[in-house]
Amino acid sequence: MAFVNEDNITDLAIKRWSTARSPRVAELMTALVRHIHDYAREVELTSDEWMAAIEWLTTTGQISNDKRQEFILASDVVGLSMLVVQMNNRFAQEATPATVLGPFHIDGSPPAAFGFDMSEGIVGTPLFITGKVTDTTGTPIPGAVLDVWQADASGTYEAQMPEIDEARLRAKYQAREDGTYCVRTIAPLGYTIPMDGPVGTLIERTEISEYRPAHVHFMFDEPGYKKLITHLFQKDTDYLDSDVVFGVKDALIVPFTEHAPGQAPDGRVVEEPFLVAHFDFALQPEN
Amino acid sequence: MAFVNEDNITDLAIKRWSTARSPRVAELMTALVRHIHDYAREVELTSDEWMAAIEWLTTTGQISNDKRQEFILASDVVGLSMLVVQMNNRFAQEATPATVLGPFHIDGSPPAAFGFDMSEGIVGTPLFITGKVTDTTGTPIPGAVLDVWQADASGTYEAQMPEIDEARLRAKYQAREDGTYCVRTIAPLGYTIPMDGPVGTLIERTEISEYRPAHVHFMFDEPGYKKLITHLFQKDTDYLDSDVVFGVKDALIVPFTEHAPGQAPDGRVVEEPFLVAHFDFALQPEN
Ligand SMILES: [Fe+2]
Ligand SMILES: [Fe+2]
Repeated sequence: MAFVNEDNITDLAIKRWSTARSPRVAELMTALVRHIHDYAREVELTSDEWMAAIEWLTTTGQISNDKRQEFILASDVVGLSMLVVQMNNRFAQEATPATVLGPFHIDGSPPAAFGFDMSEGIVGTPLFITGKVTDTTGTPIPGAVLDVWQADASGTYEAQMPEIDEARLRAKYQAREDGTYCVRTIAPLGYTIPMDGPVGTLIERTEISEYRPAHVHFMFDEPGYKKLITHLFQKDTDYLDSDVVFGVKDALIVPFTEHAPGQAPDGRVVEEPFLVAHFDFALQPEN
Repeated sequence: MAFVNEDNITDLAIKRWSTARSPRVAELMTALVRHIHDYAREVELTSDEWMAAIEWLTTTGQISNDKRQEFILASDVVGLSMLVVQMNNRFAQEATPATVLGPFHIDGSPPAAFGFDMSEGIVGTPLFITGKVTDTTGTPIPGAVLDVWQADASGTYEAQMPEIDEARLRAKYQAREDGTYCVRTIAPLGYTIPMDGPVGTLIERTEISEYRPAHVHFMFDEPGYKKLITHLFQKDTDYLDSDVVFGVKDALIVPFTEHAPGQAPDGRVVEEPFLVAHFDFALQPEN
C-alpha cells in the first residue's frame, strides 16, 4: 500500500478523482488536479502563500452577492472569461464576434420600439445606435430582439444602484421587418471595475489599468442562431488598448459621429448636438 | 495595437500580470494565468462549466466562517494541502514527518502536566500516548510543548461544537527534563469530512471515500527547530489507505496496544481496559 510522499501525491490524487461517475467530471477534475499540482510545484508555493490564497478565495466568495460577482471579475482580469468566450463562440469571419458578458446584465428588460429613448430622464449626450440585424449572408432577421444595457455618463450601471426600481439604461429593442433597429440613449462613459474588493487589491499591486473603454452591451438570443453576447466600443475612446477585462475586438469598434442639432436617425428632431453610431449585427446560424 | 483573439490572449494576460511590483507576486500571478489558461484550453471549458465553477467558488467562500474553512477542505481533498506541506517540510529522514493541519485546530489550549487527562468528563476508551521529544540525534528537548487536539469517540471536534466554552480534547502538554511526555485522553474515532457543502457535493459525484482514519493531532513550535504539524494514526484502523485528505505517512502509524485494568504509564491505576501508544517525536533543527 502506497502512503503519500512528495513524488506520488499527484498521481494518487489524479487516480482518486478519475473515479467520478461522469466521464466529463472525471476529465475536468483530473486535469484540474494536475494543473494545480504542477502550479504549486513550479512556483514552490510556500505555506504562507497557500494560506494567503485560501484567504483571498474566501473573501472573494464572501464579498459576492446578488449585485456583485467578484469571482467573475477575477476571471475577467486574468483573461479567463474572454478565453472561454472565444473558445465557445468560434463564429464565421462574417459574424459579429462575441465578448464578455460582464457582471451588470439584468434579466427581463422592458420591450422597446424603434427609436425608444432608454435614457429618458438621465443626463448625457444623446446617442443613436442604428443598423440592421442580419444573418452571416446579410439577410435581415425581422423582429430580432436586441437586449441592450450600458453604464450612465458617470460609468455606473443600474445593477450598481440598489435603490433603483425601474429599468435604467436597459431595454429590449426589436428590429423591424427589414431588420433595422434604432436605440436612443446617452453616450456611456468608460469606467473602472470595482476596486474595493480582493480583485482590486491584487490589481493595485501591479501597473494594470483598472479601466474599461466606453461601450454599450448587446445580447441576442434568436431561434436558429447562436446566442451572441457582445459590446460596441466607441472608436478613439480611452483604454481601448488596455481594457482591464480583455474585451476589445477590432470588429466591435464603431465611430460615434457628432451631429449638429436637427433630424435624428429615427426621424425626430433633436435640439442639442448628438452622436450617431452605425453597426450591422450579423448572427451566426446554428449548425 | 493587438486586440484580443483566442491565440494571443494568454500572452497578453501574462504580460499584464508581469507588471506586479513584487517579483514574487509577478512570478506567482504569471504562472497562475498560464496554468489557468492551459487548463481551460486543454479541457475546452464550456461556458456552462465556467459558470458552474464560478458558482462553486462563490458558495465555497460563503459557507466558510470562523469555525469552517471550506476552501482548506477543497485544497485537502485534491491533495494540494499535503503537497504544500511536503514541499515546505523537507526534513531529514530521522525527523518526524509533517502532515496536514486540518481545519479544527484552536489556538490557546490550556497548559497540561505529564499525564493530565484532557478527556475528563468525555466518554471513551482511555488512551495514553507516551514517548520522548528529541532532536534528530535522539537528544531530548526538555520542556518541549506538545499542542495536542483530537476528535471525540463520535468523530467530533470542539471546533464543531459552537456551544462549548471550555477546552475539549485539546491541551498543551510539556515534556519533562528528560524529554518524556504523557498524554491521557480517549481513543479518537475516524470521521468524515463535512459533506453538506460544495466539497461534499463534488465528492459525492465520485467513488472517493469521505473518511479519515482515527488520529490525534500534534503541533510543536520550539525555538531552534522547524515548526512541526503532524498526526499520529492508529495502526490497523479503517481508512488508513484511503484518507480523504491524503495525510497518512508510514512513519506516523502507531499501534494502540490494549491493556487490562491496572497501572497506567503515568503510574496511576486505571480500573477499566485502556490503550497505550508509544511515539518519540524527533524535531528537525533549523539550519
Ligand atoms: Fe460594461
Ligand atoms: Fe483531524
